[in-house]
Parts: sequence; structure tokens; C-alpha cells
Amino acid sequence: MLLAVLGRGVVDPATPIIRADDAGVTRGDGCFEGVRLCLDGHGRPGPAKLERHLARMARSAAALDLPFDPAPWRELVALACAAWRDPGAGEAAIKLVLTRGPAGGPAAGYLTITEIDPDYARQRRDGMRVATLGRGLASDAFHAAPWLLGGVKTLSYAINMAAQREAARIGVDDVVFVSADGYVLEAPTGSVVWSSGRALHTTPTGATGILAGTTQQLLFDAAGAAGWNVGEELVTVDDLHTADCVWVVSSVRGPVDVVEIDGKTRARDPATVAAVRTFCNF
Amino acid sequence: MLLAVLGRGVVDPATPIIRADDAGVTRGDGCFEGVRLCLDGHGRPGPAKLERHLARMARSAAALDLPFDPAPWRELVALACAAWRDPGAGEAAIKLVLTRGPAGGPAAGYLTITEIDPDYARQRRDGMRVATLGRGLASDAFHAAPWLLGGVKTLSYAINMAAQREAARIGVDDVVFVSADGYVLEAPTGSVVWSSGRALHTTPTGATGILAGTTQQLLFDAAGAAGWNVGEELVTVDDLHTADCVWVVSSVRGPVDVVEIDGKTRARDPATVAAVRTFCNF
Repeated sequence: MLLAVLGRGVVDPATPIIRADDAGVTRGDGCFEGVRLCLDGHGRPGPAKLERHLARMARSAAALDLPFDPAPWRELVALACAAWRDPGAGEAAIKLVLTRGPAGGPAAGYLTITEIDPDYARQRRDGMRVATLGRGLASDAFHAAPWLLGGVKTLSYAINMAAQREAARIGVDDVVFVSADGYVLEAPTGSVVWSSGRALHTTPTGATGILAGTTQQLLFDAAGAAGWNVGEELVTVDDLHTADCVWVVSSVRGPVDVVEIDGKTRARDPATVAAVRTFCNF
Repeated sequence: MLLAVLGRGVVDPATPIIRADDAGVTRGDGCFEGVRLCLDGHGRPGPAKLERHLARMARSAAALDLPFDPAPWRELVALACAAWRDPGAGEAAIKLVLTRGPAGGPAAGYLTITEIDPDYARQRRDGMRVATLGRGLASDAFHAAPWLLGGVKTLSYAINMAAQREAARIGVDDVVFVSADGYVLEAPTGSVVWSSGRALHTTPTGATGILAGTTQQLLFDAAGAAGWNVGEELVTVDDLHTADCVWVVSSVRGPVDVVEIDGKTRARDPATVAAVRTFCNF
């Protein structure tokens, strides 16, 4: 792991850098981004779609009343990527973390670069099996309720992690959250996208509280430019079963097509899967 | 602030002790307890109802698949309380924190002792003004959904903190969360209790997902032993308006009676407020 801290640069990753009373740890009070690191044509490591991530982090920080200036983050990412020694994978995971800090501040910012989860290669190759789990919230629960932090990528991910442990317990790769009124929301660490012919859809942001996916947006921008229809739609799990293809789309894992939902196997469509992968720059 | 770390003892509180990749900070993945420190008859500082807190922390840790042994925590609390120099307040706030740790572990445990929020004295004296805010979840949302971590005191408190910032924005002291179907749940950092004559009620735990309050339980045990009726009930905000008294009950702040709900002033009942305070050992 490589660690770089705002205002300090690269730091030994074994060195603790967070105070015991930082609200980032005591309250999960802060925000983060997960960014893909990949190599350019000259083998130089750099971040994928960094500006989309910094724009979302700025929105997260604003929703949390935290200060955020993208300029030092750009510098820190550049410095850390230059220091990263690729162990041969050709890609890695950058995590940007902003915490509220101890009472009275200041907010603390840092990034880590780690090797990607070795299981991602298998999922990309073989597809992923998912189970749907209720999220307990209606699909309009976040309407006019900014204190619920809908669409904000906070550090408070305990439920997301518990859902992924539940997935492991059930024996599947990941989870798709479903609203209390039966609509498809998102995965704990990714967007859900489905296709019908050359049309791609995802769940609307806003009242649903789901996160605006940077890779989902890149995908829709690229697919739209290539003449595909793209849009947002509230659909049920039954609708998902009848879609041509279904993906969980994340920045580091990339777009992974779903081969099983709640025990029902889905046929794969290699041409569409390949097209979506290309649109996502994977 | 005093800081004591499991396996290390008392540590300079300015020393960072959390690694950048500890899931406690990157995922809000861990649990905590807030314990009141008070002085015994000889002026010696000690924790209030520590065993109730350790029992709840054991339940939280189990729900998160985290290891937890209360014995070293008892020792750490005793050691830290003995080292605490009371600045004259006669009470303080102990926070116990258990994080999942970096990938592969180990979990990290520590406690802090801090002076209590100076605003609590005013709230205890004058009562508190609250606003109700929707929590977006139905009152039975946590039924058979352990991945939603109902009743688990996780570190993922970003929504609770955002709700308290919303309270400050509105100009009230705190918030009472209400379920999507209109029932009173809990405060972001306390239980809601209401009275009718010599009967006390609170919201049921379980399917509501609310936290079992250690001070609320102490209150009900003591009041029940004194011949009061105590019980759990789902009630609406209108029901709260018609209750004799309403409290937000927390371990460190104590039981504070509510003098205003959503702009409607409530009469205070000094005798009942004093009785409840005594039952809570405040």
C-alpha cells in the first residue's frame, strides 16, 4: 500500500495518521472516492476520470458542510501515482478520504493506493452472481430530506459492508439493494445498469438516495455518443430478470455483468458485454 | 482529553493511533459506546453502568462479526479513570471505540475521556427544544434484515450527525427521528421516553431498528421497581404532543425533558422530571 497525506506527501503506510477523536472514525463523518489507477501507453500510472471523482467529492463535502478544494488533491494524486510501483497488474485502487477531524478541526485528507481485489479478475471474466436485499427505505425516502445524505458518498458504509458479508454468507458475489416499495436501487459499492437491445438504463438519483455513479455516467455518455439510448428508470426485480443484460458498475472493479440474480441464472451476451466494457474504458 | 489504547495503556491524545486503511475510518466499520464518568463519594472517577455498556458493545460487535472480550476493556476503563484529572465538573464522557482495523486485522480498541459538552448543563436546567425529522425507514424495516444493522451502535453515524446539524440550522437543540409510517423512533444520540401519570413508555426495539438505550433501560428498571408502569409502544408525533412529559435520554447528557416539539411549547412538570432524573442516577 502507498499512503499520501494532504500537506505531508508520501508517508509510511504503517504509520497511524488518524487521531482517536477524529469524527471520521468516531462518527463515520467524512466522505471518500474510489478511483481506478491504470497505466498510460508509456507504462506511467495515472488516475481514471479523476475530475468526475473530484466533482462528486466536492458535492459530498458540501452536503456534509466540509471544506473541499480539488487543487491539492490533484497534486496529491499526481505525486502518489508517480511514486506507485506497479507490481505487474497494470491497475490499482486509489482511495481518497476526507474526514471531519477532531472537534474544532481541521479536516484530514489522505489517499491510499492498493492492489485491486484479486477476485475482480474472476468476476470480470465469469460475471457475477448477486442476491437482492431490502434496503428498508422507500424509493422516494430522500425527497426533501437532506439530513439523510442521499447521494453523498460518506464514510458511514457499515450497512454496505454488512450487506456484502451477507452476500458472502449466502454464497454470492454481491448484493443489489431494493427499496421498501420494490424498486431496484444500487449495489453496496456500485451502480446497477441494465440493457434492452441498444438501450441502457439505471436507477434515477435524487429521491431514491442512490449515489450518482461516475463509471455509470461515463458509460452513458459514451454509449449515448455512439447512438445508444440511455436513461433513468425505476424498475422492479422482475423487470431486471427480463432485461437483456444486467451489470454492477464500479470505478475500480469496472462493469461486471450479472450471471445470476437470486438463484436464477442469466444468459450472457458477449457482444453487449464487450461494448459496455469499451464504453467504460475497461 | 485522555486517550487509552487496548494493549498500550494511556497514550498522548495528540498521537494519531488509527491507520489510514482501518475500516473504522474508511467504512465506518466498527462500534462504540458513550459512557458517563462520575465521581464516587470519595471523589474518585469511575464509569456509570459500565456492564450495561459492555453488554451492548458485545452485541454490536457480534452483529458486525468483530471479536470482543469485555475483560481488557474493564481494565482499560479502570486504568483511564484512575488517570483522569477532573477539572472540577465532577463528570466527563468516556467513549469506547472498536474498529475493524486494516484488511486482515487486527481490530483496534481504544477509549477517550473528554469534558462534557458545556451546553448539556443548560439543557438539563432549561429542557430541550426538538424538531421531528423523517428517518425514511418504515417502523418494521429491520424485521428479518440483519444486514441493516438495526440496534447496532456502529461508527456509521454520518446521518445522525447531519440530523443534529439540521437541528442547529432550524434553531433547536436536537431531533426526534420519525419512521416513514409516522411513528416516533429515537433521537440521533438518545432514546425518546414519554410519561402519562406514573407510566413511562419508549419505542420498541427490534423491527424499528432503534438502539436499546442503556439509560432508558436503567430508568425503566428503577421506575418499575418503584411501582411505576413501564412499557414499549409505537406512537405518533401527535401522541407525543399529548403525553404528560417527553424526554431524550442519553448516557452522558442524562435524561433531558423536552419543552418544545416542532415549535409547540410543552409545560414542564418539575416533580416528574426530578423523579426520572433520580431513577437515572443523575
